[in-house]
Formats: sequence, C-alpha cells, structure tokens
Amino acid sequence: MSATRYTYLGPAGTFTEAALHTLPEAATRELVPLASVQAALDAVRLGEAAGAFVPIENSVEGAVTTTTDELATGAPLMVYREVLLPITFALLVRPGTTLADVKTVTSHPVGHPQVRRWLGTHLPHAQWEAASSNAEGARLVQEGVMDGAFAGEFAAPLYGLEPLVTDIHDAENATTRFVLVGRPGRVSSPTGADKTSMVVWLGDNHPGALLELLQEFAVRGVNLMRIESRPTGQGLGNYCFSIDCEGHLAERRVSETLMGLRRICPQIRFLGSYPRADRRARSARQPGTSDEDFVRAADWLARCLDGRSED
Amino acid sequence: MSATRYTYLGPAGTFTEAALHTLPEAATRELVPLASVQAALDAVRLGEAAGAFVPIENSVEGAVTTTTDELATGAPLMVYREVLLPITFALLVRPGTTLADVKTVTSHPVGHPQVRRWLGTHLPHAQWEAASSNAEGARLVQEGVMDGAFAGEFAAPLYGLEPLVTDIHDAENATTRFVLVGRPGRVSSPTGADKTSMVVWLGDNHPGALLELLQEFAVRGVNLMRIESRPTGQGLGNYCFSIDCEGHLAERRVSETLMGLRRICPQIRFLGSYPRADRRARSARQPGTSDEDFVRAADWLARCLDGRSED
Amino acid sequence: MSATRYTYLGPAGTFTEAALHTLPEAATRELVPLASVQAALDAVRLGEAAGAFVPIENSVEGAVTTTTDELATGAPLMVYREVLLPITFALLVRPGTTLADVKTVTSHPVGHPQVRRWLGTHLPHAQWEAASSNAEGARLVQEGVMDGAFAGEFAAPLYGLEPLVTDIHDAENATTRFVLVGRPGRVSSPTGADKTSMVVWLGDNHPGALLELLQEFAVRGVNLMRIESRPTGQGLGNYCFSIDCEGHLAERRVSETLMGLRRICPQIRFLGSYPRADRRARSARQPGTSDEDFVRAADWLARCLDGRSED
Amino acid sequence: MSATRYTYLGPAGTFTEAALHTLPEAATRELVPLASVQAALDAVRLGEAAGAFVPIENSVEGAVTTTTDELATGAPLMVYREVLLPITFALLVRPGTTLADVKTVTSHPVGHPQVRRWLGTHLPHAQWEAASSNAEGARLVQEGVMDGAFAGEFAAPLYGLEPLVTDIHDAENATTRFVLVGRPGRVSSPTGADKTSMVVWLGDNHPGALLELLQEFAVRGVNLMRIESRPTGQGLGNYCFSIDCEGHLAERRVSETLMGLRRICPQIRFLGSYPRADRRARSARQPGTSDEDFVRAADWLARCLDGRSED
Repeated sequence: MSATRYTYLGPAGTFTEAALHTLPEAATRELVPLASVQAALDAVRLGEAAGAFVPIENSVEGAVTTTTDELATGAPLMVYREVLLPITFALLVRPGTTLADVKTVTSHPVGHPQVRRWLGTHLPHAQWEAASSNAEGARLVQEGVMDGAFAGEFAAPLYGLEPLVTDIHDAENATTRFVLVGRPGRVSSPTGADKTSMVVWLGDNHPGALLELLQEFAVRGVNLMRIESRPTGQGLGNYCFSIDCEGHLAERRVSETLMGLRRICPQIRFLGSYPRADRRARSARQPGTSDEDFVRAADWLARCLDGRSED
Repeated sequence: MSATRYTYLGPAGTFTEAALHTLPEAATRELVPLASVQAALDAVRLGEAAGAFVPIENSVEGAVTTTTDELATGAPLMVYREVLLPITFALLVRPGTTLADVKTVTSHPVGHPQVRRWLGTHLPHAQWEAASSNAEGARLVQEGVMDGAFAGEFAAPLYGLEPLVTDIHDAENATTRFVLVGRPGRVSSPTGADKTSMVVWLGDNHPGALLELLQEFAVRGVNLMRIESRPTGQGLGNYCFSIDCEGHLAERRVSETLMGLRRICPQIRFLGSYPRADRRARSARQPGTSDEDFVRAADWLARCLDGRSED
Repeated sequence: MSATRYTYLGPAGTFTEAALHTLPEAATRELVPLASVQAALDAVRLGEAAGAFVPIENSVEGAVTTTTDELATGAPLMVYREVLLPITFALLVRPGTTLADVKTVTSHPVGHPQVRRWLGTHLPHAQWEAASSNAEGARLVQEGVMDGAFAGEFAAPLYGLEPLVTDIHDAENATTRFVLVGRPGRVSSPTGADKTSMVVWLGDNHPGALLELLQEFAVRGVNLMRIESRPTGQGLGNYCFSIDCEGHLAERRVSETLMGLRRICPQIRFLGSYPRADRRARSARQPGTSDEDFVRAADWLARCLDGRSED
Repeated sequence: MSATRYTYLGPAGTFTEAALHTLPEAATRELVPLASVQAALDAVRLGEAAGAFVPIENSVEGAVTTTTDELATGAPLMVYREVLLPITFALLVRPGTTLADVKTVTSHPVGHPQVRRWLGTHLPHAQWEAASSNAEGARLVQEGVMDGAFAGEFAAPLYGLEPLVTDIHDAENATTRFVLVGRPGRVSSPTGADKTSMVVWLGDNHPGALLELLQEFAVRGVNLMRIESRPTGQGLGNYCFSIDCEGHLAERRVSETLMGLRRICPQIRFLGSYPRADRRARSARQPGTSDEDFVRAADWLARCLDGRSED
C-alpha cells in the first residue's frame, strides 16, 4: 500500500538507510530501496510511495545536485523532514581477518576522501578499488572478492562481516543531510526551530539581481542557511538558486520575504517548511522581526488609516 | 464656527494667503491669519479651526523647520493637502513712482536672496531693509516710510500700491510648498498620484541605522521625495528624519514599508497620505511593486501553506 | 594684520564669543565681531582675516543653514577646528534687582525655547521680548529698557550686570557646535579622533541615489555623524547633502569613501578633516577598516599581480 | 620537457581534447591525457607540465566541483585562459551500420541527459549503458561490444567509426567551459574583455556575511558572472564561494573590490584574470567605474589633502 511505503536511495546497508531509521515512523513503513534519487522521487510523484528519503548535502562533498535539481524541476514535491547523520566509517572484514591480512579495500568513491589519510597511515600498501555503493563493497568482501570494505558499522551484520576498525574519518564533523520528500501538502505547524527551502530564479540576469534577492531576506531579518547556484539549462551564465533559510512559512518575517521574492523573481518554487534537525532556534534574533512585532505593526497601520495612530 | 475656519500663517497679502486661495474650498472657509506657524497649528489642536495652512519647504531656503518640528512633536496632526506656489516678486510702489524714485526697498529677509541680483543690476544704489513680512513691507510703502516693497503682485491692491516691475526672481523655479494640516482622521482614498509623510526616529544611534531605514523603502520600490534630519533635543548626534515618499498608505508597497519602519525604529509618526500637487504619478515603476503584484504574491503564499503553490 | 585676525558672528558677549575663547590661539588673535555669518566668512574669502568662527549646529534648533549653505557654495572654504559649547542661560539684571522686580525679560529668539519653561515656573507674569542677540538684550537691561536678559553668564561684566539666576536650560544637554573656518589649505595630520566634512550632490535624482551614497560609507565601515539635506536652488526635489563622518581624510577608509563619492556623484566639495571636539575615538571599529588592513590588502594585491599572492 | 607539456582530462577523443585544440598554442605542445582532473593539476603542481586543461562548468550539469575544489585548496594554481565549447553529440557507429542495426548505445553518464530525448524519439528500443568516458564508449563500438556511441563527431576517425547522426542535443546551447591552469605567475595584461576568478571564505558565519561580500562588488560596479557555494569541510553550514566576476585585476574597480574582500573575509584566493572566451566587453557600464574615473578621483583626493580640491 503506497500510503505506508517510503522509497529511499538504496541499496540497503548504506548511510541513507541508517539515517532513515532515525525517523520514528520508519518502524511502521515499508522501506523500499531504489537505484537512484530520481527513481525514489518518481515513485512519490506517481503515487507509488508516500515519501522518498534521499541525501541532499554532504559537509565534505557539497550538494547532491541530483536531488536539488530534481526538486527544482518536474512535478512539484515538498520536503517534510530533514535528518543529519555524522559519517564515520568502519573497516568491515570477514570474521577472523586481521589488519595484516587486508591487501585490498573498497568503498563508494564518495567515501574515499574520508578514509584516504587513514589508509595511508594504517594500510599504506593496501589497494583501493571503487564499488557502486558502500553496501556493494561489503557484499564484495562477503564474497571474498575484496578483503575489506569501508562502510557504516551498521552494515556489518547484513553481510556477515565484522567491524575490524571503527570511527574512521579524515575530516572532523563529516555529516550528511537527508530529506524526506512527499507530494505537496499542507505545511505542518511551526515548532520554533524550523527551516524553509525554496528555489528562486533570477530574472533578466541583470547585475545586482542576486544582491536584491538577498536583501529581501536581510531587510526582514531572515538568515540564510544554504545557497547553491544551479544552471537553468538555458546556457552558461543563467542560474537559479537553491536556498534554505531560517524560520517557518507561517512566521511573518518568512512569509513576507517569500512574497517579496515572488514579486521580484520571474519564478520561485516553495519546497517546504520543516523542523531543523539540529533543533537549534534561530540565530541572534534581529529586533523587530518576531511575529508579535509584525502584528503590532499591522495594528498600528490599521489605526493610521483610521487617523488613530497614536491612540 | 471652527468647522469652517482655516487658520494660516499671516498676515494677509503674503504668498501663504495666495497659495491658500488656490484650494477650491478656501472660498467657503473663514480664513484667519495668525502670527506664527505654531499659533496656526495650535488653533487646530484646540479645535478652534478645522485646518491650518502653513509653508513647509522652499526650493531656495529649504525646510521650514518650525513646521516640520511642530508636526513631529506635541498633539498629533495630519497633512491632508499640499500646494506648490512659484515664487516671483513684484516691486510694489505708490502710484506714480518711477524706478529712478526708488531709494529704499524692503521685504521679508527670506525673500532677500531672491531679489538681490535684480537689485544689484537695476537699483544698485537702493537701500534694502528687512520687514517682518512681505505684506508688512507693502504697508511701509503705503505709509511712505519706504519707496518700494518686494512682495507678491497680488498684494498691490490690498495696500493701494502698483506693481512697477513683475516676475523678479534670482533663482529659476523658486517654489514654496504649503500644507493643509488638520486633526488626525481617516486617510482619504488614493488618487493614483499621492505622497506619504512621516517622521522616523533612529534607535540606538548605531552606525548604519539610516541605511537600514532607507532599505525598508528600497526593497519595496518606494521612492523618497524628501528627507530632512532634525535634532531630537536629546543632545548633538541624535536625529529624527522627516520623510516624504511616493505613494499612498493604502498601497501595499507603502503600507509594508511603514510597517517595516515601525518594527525597526523606536518611534514613528505617520503624518498622512495626500494627493501630490504636481499630479505626477510615481516615477519609474519598479517591477513587482504594484498592488496587483502584492495580491498575487499573497494568493501564492496562501496556496503554499496549503501545498497548492503550483496550481 | 589679517594673518592674526579671526572674525566671528557678533556681537561680543554672545555664546559664539565664549566658544571662540576656548580655542587656545584665540588669546593671540585679533577677534573681530561681524554682524552676520556671511560677513564673517567673506572676510576670510577676501583675505581680510585668517579665520572665521561661526555656529553650525545646535542640538535643539538643528543646523545653522546659513553656515552650511555658505560653506557649500561660493569660493571654497575649509573647516579646521570645531568647538562644542553647552548652552545654559543666566538671568542678567542690574545690580540690586530681585526676582520680584523683574517684569520684562529679553533674549535672542533662538534662546526663547530654552528658557520658556523656566519662565513659566519662576516668572509667570513677566513679559518676554525679542532682542537681535543675547548681548543686545543685556545692553537693553544695562540701559534700563528691560529688567532682565537671558544670556551667557560671561556677558554680565561686559554690561555691568549681575547674574541673578544661573544654569537655566529647558532641554538637558543643549549644545551648540561651532567651527573655525579658513581658506583651503593643507589638511593637518590625523589625531586618532577626527571627523571629516563634505557636501555631496545627488545626480539625476534617481530613486536610490541616497542609498548608493550611504553604501559608499557603509562598505568601508565609515560612520556618519550628521547628514543634512539642503535644496540646490534648482527647484523642489533637488537636494544636496551636508555630511560629517568619522575619521580623517588621511585614513584609507575615509579617502576611499570620498573617492567613491567623487566617482558616483556629479559634484562633491571636501570641507576638511579636523579633530573631534569630544575627543572620542571612532565608535565600534568594524573589522578590516584600519589603515593596516588597507596596507595589507594593497600588499596582497601587488603580490597577486605578480603571481605571488600566497607567499 | 615539462615547459612544453600540457596535461588534460583524458582520454583522447573527448570534448576536453577537442576544446584544448581550439587553443592556438596547443599545436606546439605535448598534450598528455590523464585519468582525472586531480592528476592533470598535480602534474602542473609538481612541475611536470606547464599547463593543465580541465572542464570547470557545464551549462546543463553545473560546476565540475572536482576542479573548483582542487583550485580552492592545495598548492596554489592560476587560470590563464578559458574555452567555451558547444556540446552536441554524434552517434558513432562502425561503417555500414544503419539506424535499424543499433540495439545498444553507450556514453559517459554526464552525456546521457543530453541525448535521452533523442533516444526516446529515434531509438526507443535501444539499450543504453554507461561508459567511463565518451571516448571509451567509442572504443567499445570499435571492438563490437556496443552498436553505437554518443560522442563528439571528432572522435570518429580515432576509432575507425562513422558519424551516423550528428548535432544531437536535448538542451539548446549546451556548453562546457574549460580552463587552462598553470602555476601562479605574473597576470597578463587586460584585453578589455576579461574576467577574474577567486575563492572567498566567509568569516564567522554571521548572518548577512554573503550580502556584505556581494556589496563589495556592487559598490564598485563589478558584475558577478558565476558564484558557487562549496563546503569548507568544517561541517555543514560552513561554505566558501567560488566566484567569477567581470573585469581584470589591473582595472581599478576590480582591484579595489578584491582588496575590500581581502579586508573583510578571513581568507581569499586569487585565481587569475584572463580573457573572456566570449570576447564580450563588460555588460552595461555603471557610471563612475572606469579606470579614468578612478584616476580622476585619486587626483582630486590628492588635491583635497593639499587644500586645492577645486583648482
């Protein structure tokens, strides 16, 4: 039944699946790994799944542009949840293998930069080869093709392997951000620590257009959290911007900002307001930007129109 | 009866009175000259008059700070109308006087810069003396104390004088702007060519506060027409700003701007939206700033909240 | 000898003269009171005096527009020094007079707002009349025409009077700012707590021109201290701006700002860099705006051009 | 000899090689294909080659982040030249093959989006498989493993193939931008139509930091051509920006902008000024931003310091 089905970027045994399991509702969903971000999202668009869980950004590799591009184009989708997962690797081996036995290692290429230094120090003579996913790497170890696989520790039991070394990571704080995506629906209520995602197109490519766009945020005291430029496909020099900002669409400073963008930009796509995974409330609150401030100002304006502004 | 009484900065026979007569309703009002701007405004505050007509700005002398300061403080007042009057002088003399007879001339000191060059060319040996108003100058000529008075041509018959020379003005386009002020009341409807006046206080004197204030206007495409800094009386370095902008409070770009100012400034006083005397519509319209643009953006926002943003 | 002569806005016995005496060099100058700001400045322009000392701003009344306009037009002048004088009044009377004897009082009209409340409380029945200066008011008391004069306490001995009450002031912190003006000359060295004055004309009256002007300051971290709009005489809606900012022209952040203004504005007049009378160093220093920061950036740029930017 | 050697992202027969051949000097260089962008750049860093030619941006796929990241970190490199190559595909087959014979096709995955629609229309039943490069795809056709390869038409003779269909492209104007990279050296002279590349780090992640960065450009009238955010590796939410702007470092508006960035940003890396491949001069010239304007302003400033600003 599609209403209880979540697709995700597979295969099983990857960091994506591990991140998905941190969502409480995952326990009651049918979780279906698919071979690509596009396949996972299309299942939602076609009504075959209620949600798709995909990576969107990595603190080392940057944006997962397949995901941001898919959200920017095609049938509309919305983000309902985000998950942050710290990325540390385990070296998975067949039971009984020692470090001295490991002559060949594998991982998904994206993981390679994260283990390269560790490899240089601890297994300087081991040969690294690419696998199509970390889980596939583990399978190759299970089958005896490779001696070790860098993958999440959680993948070990799936393939009958053991974690020989854990907590391997060249960059501190390596984190991947995942989003749960669904068909557009009513935005859930603010939690007090939310973020809002959108894609904004710049108009006639006029100098200063990006500056004007950012000023719509700044003048209402809305902080940007992420901004990615992406080609529009209309030739070099034509970009749209994938943006996350602090706050919820139901907050006045955010809604006024989005209406401002809608007015000055030829196209804008709202991608959802949802709880921040880090549960941090907004950074330094700029005076005059709370909902109460907006309401007081609107009350005052109504009195101005009535000639009672100083009552 | 106060409802039909307008006070104005007197005496009779001045440019202020001439400007007042350009208002159609002046014909049906009791027009009362008073000795000072403050007196004229206080009569309105006390309910003794329905309106006060006073100068607020001159294209040569600048702001009439008594007027701007009075509007900024004390019991609230509102501007309902503005009048622009080109200022050109006539040399008024007793009948029969020739230019060669004119040895002494007089005018209000504010008018002096406007006739100085003409005097140097045409009456280089005449002696100028100050009068407390141009009308008082005419009276001095009537009484034979002075030979000539610079005043509006319209003042001649009031004092039994003749305009010997007309259209005297050192600066081209010298214009005085007058405002009709009343007690606060419901703002009249937009005419399509309106302006809005206000006084805005800057908060903690932080660097960049004025820039932030101007950005509230700029981001909504609202053009400034006049900005005057005035001391707040709290010591040097503390200013408020008397501001006129294009547009009417009932227009969304203006109301959103004023609400923005209200949120970020410690104090703001709305002084009215009223028809522009030059009847010019706003200058170059910035895209995305019409009321229709605001309405469309608000509709879109409502759909976003409902998950129907791309319907 | 003109090189040792300073003119000032007279007559003697006014606050202007008192402020002038706070300048150490005043003791060795011939101090010449003149009847108007214009006369005092013209004496400098004509080479008849080395300096002119005139009021430029009052914390209650605002700009002395005669001074700002004179500095903006005509033969160039420069400001070399500023003086701040707290304004408090004494009630000067003939020796032997008691408060009960005072039926008539006088002062310059500018001083009236500063003593009005005191009068209402302590001499509610006294009649106030305007004098052409506070010193002239004192003279009228000396001659027995009036009973009391509000003036600086320092004026008492000049007119054989006694201060009956001192320290009278309705507004706290009432202060007048005076400037010492001379013919243009080499700017003196920075003291570490300086200010810079200028007049800037906005070009084609395009919306946003003032914002652009302020951004030239903001982007280099230069704080505004005062900004006054003044008519250009080209008709309503055409303004120039008289501006004081923090810092000295010899400081890089200030010189780069002024060059920026010079590039984007049709006209700019530099009016001098001189020590701040309050001796306060600049407010919160914005990172990256010290001379050292500018020098380091220029060094880096030179290395960039040479391909050695990361040496 | 390394001084005449250029490395490039191989293998031979790719669009990169075709773009490289548009450089006149390529005819006199030893051109060495390497397996990765990193390998091509490292050869330059190690002194084994004088230049490396690599793709940096595609109008459909966006930034080649390997290239932007490599330029942002490690031993400094500089861009000396850019090339724009329109990307259209040919379907390469063994001589004698007809469209009806083509059951299997291949290409590099990056090319797939560019031919997908054509495939759906003209070869709806053909099976697509990924190759590690377009050239490798051609080799697979040569060996009879696949029936057709999407590649540049220029690759046909290298593999004994024929272009069966040419000018295949789903997106109009698909273009790839390549750069010739070398060790840091003296920046060549401006041509009048140049661009400047850099990487800029934002400091303390404070709200508005990106806006401030853009204002350094805007206030000097320097237009952005491309801006890419990239993770710094310090955890989610920490970004640096890879930026191209109009103009040459030897132009004053550009050098002043870069010095401004250097002052306010914790880190900046200059990546070169070089001729624009589109040979277009800068877009709408903002008044006051030419070198002559800068020189005039500097002259004026010098006169200000000397008290001769209005000579």
